Amino acid sequence: MTTPWRERPVGIVGLGLIGGSLGLDLQGQGLEVRALVHRASTMERARERQLASQIDLDPSVLADCGLIVLALPLDRLLDPEAELLAALPRDAVITDVGSVKQPISTLWQQKHPRFVASHPMAGTAEAGVEAGLTGLFAGRPWVVTPNEQTDRDALNSVRDLAESLGAHWLTCPAAAHDRAVALISHMPVLVSAALLQAAEQGGEAADAAALVRQLASSGFADTSRIGGGNPELGTLMARCNRSAVLEALQHYRQQLSDLEALVQGEDWSSLERSLSHCQALRPDFL
Amino acid sequence: MTTPWRERPVGIVGLGLIGGSLGLDLQGQGLEVRALVHRASTMERARERQLASQIDLDPSVLADCGLIVLALPLDRLLDPEAELLAALPRDAVITDVGSVKQPISTLWQQKHPRFVASHPMAGTAEAGVEAGLTGLFAGRPWVVTPNEQTDRDALNSVRDLAESLGAHWLTCPAAAHDRAVALISHMPVLVSAALLQAAEQGGEAADAAALVRQLASSGFADTSRIGGGNPELGTLMARCNRSAVLEALQHYRQQLSDLEALVQGEDWSSLERSLSHCQALRPDFL
Repeated sequence: MTTPWRERPVGIVGLGLIGGSLGLDLQGQGLEVRALVHRASTMERARERQLASQIDLDPSVLADCGLIVLALPLDRLLDPEAELLAALPRDAVITDVGSVKQPISTLWQQKHPRFVASHPMAGTAEAGVEAGLTGLFAGRPWVVTPNEQTDRDALNSVRDLAESLGAHWLTCPAAAHDRAVALISHMPVLVSAALLQAAEQGGEAADAAALVRQLASSGFADTSRIGGGNPELGTLMARCNRSAVLEALQHYRQQLSDLEALVQGEDWSSLERSLSHCQALRPDFL
Repeated sequence: MTTPWRERPVGIVGLGLIGGSLGLDLQGQGLEVRALVHRASTMERARERQLASQIDLDPSVLADCGLIVLALPLDRLLDPEAELLAALPRDAVITDVGSVKQPISTLWQQKHPRFVASHPMAGTAEAGVEAGLTGLFAGRPWVVTPNEQTDRDALNSVRDLAESLGAHWLTCPAAAHDRAVALISHMPVLVSAALLQAAEQGGEAADAAALVRQLASSGFADTSRIGGGNPELGTLMARCNRSAVLEALQHYRQQLSDLEALVQGEDWSSLERSLSHCQALRPDFL
């Protein structure tokens, strides 16, 4: 299917995991991809990896693009550079990849008439110019949070982009998105980080610091994985989605207190019932 | 190396994951393995799987054994049947596989003069007569919690058993063991279960029950894995290690509150410092 945006180059701002993967897949579709990056060292390496057809430090590289993906971290999306804003063609479709949608949507809809708020949910543990890989979006959700202000033609272009990458297209209100990702992604980072700190502190208090490290097995490795992840990313999630994260933490603390009360009260049949409920619940989230 | 226990049959009580795996590996060493099981259906299936050389419902099957492993769940270890106790030869080495050591050690040292408290830390998600597999213990910790009452010769026999299976031998006081496993295994089950319940409750409160399920990705799957595990096992861990689990929860709640206060107070540099500490800490536990 050929739609207007495909007849012009595609722009990507940032060539980290998401931007680099997009560049590889879109070139694989035969499209011309033009990328703007921030640092000379990134530019060199991205050129070696051929993450886009043209890669530059000068925003004018985006001049002729029909669709531009802002593949930047949350803080840079929420505080965009004037040079970047000036370089975005007014008739281009603009979308982003941020994991928080309300503040980004509010800001960017003021900045550009054809902005569509996107969240392709395709993370790996890797980041940076080495991280991009082909096929990253296949089968993964690509969430979009349009509102009455969103240009319908621009929305269709982003849908075409997402579906051409094999992603699973989903739309919902920005507020619902932000609360959902707080519950299943942003708050769990803190829950998991607290576990690592409790094992450290509790191990020291019990004079068993070495023992807790020796005995930790695959269960602990799984539960602590996201808490031991990228600290900048975890901080940005909490900062940019603060109210939803605090709300999710309230739900979390309530559930943990309920379980603790069962242990405190030695109510083993209720505890087993509660854990059975969790066992039955988990497949819904996989 | 031939030691006396190897010159007699080895006994196993229970042929679930641990017992069945032991039976397969010990037969692989050319030993005769005699197993006691509880149910006729287990006996039939265990015989088909050849988990031991001789498998019976009658405790007298243990009569000639020189070393017997009690591969039973915590509740059955803490409330052993009179027929089982009567059938254990007084000169045999007796050991167990329970994940809580203080109450088991106290009880069994009264019941048998040659009891050695063991915790081979080799779990999988599977349980029951189908779960046993070869090589389960290779490279995994085999923790033993001897005290001044422990028979040194019996202790050496258990060490020989563990090392012949390729396990990594560790000794520590029972109290230190129980606090360590509370921190890295038993308490995390509750932390992980509360996450599933918070995602469910929070999703309903945000009118986004379907969305949280659709957007949950590999991070949530990892963090929720042990909370969605075997509910009987999770309950037994909390019940049999209650005071250490409550103590671990106190450490946990404190750490989570500290992180929450940073989000509440918008202290992003401290939050990032704390998450960086977690990132640096995690490899110690792997």
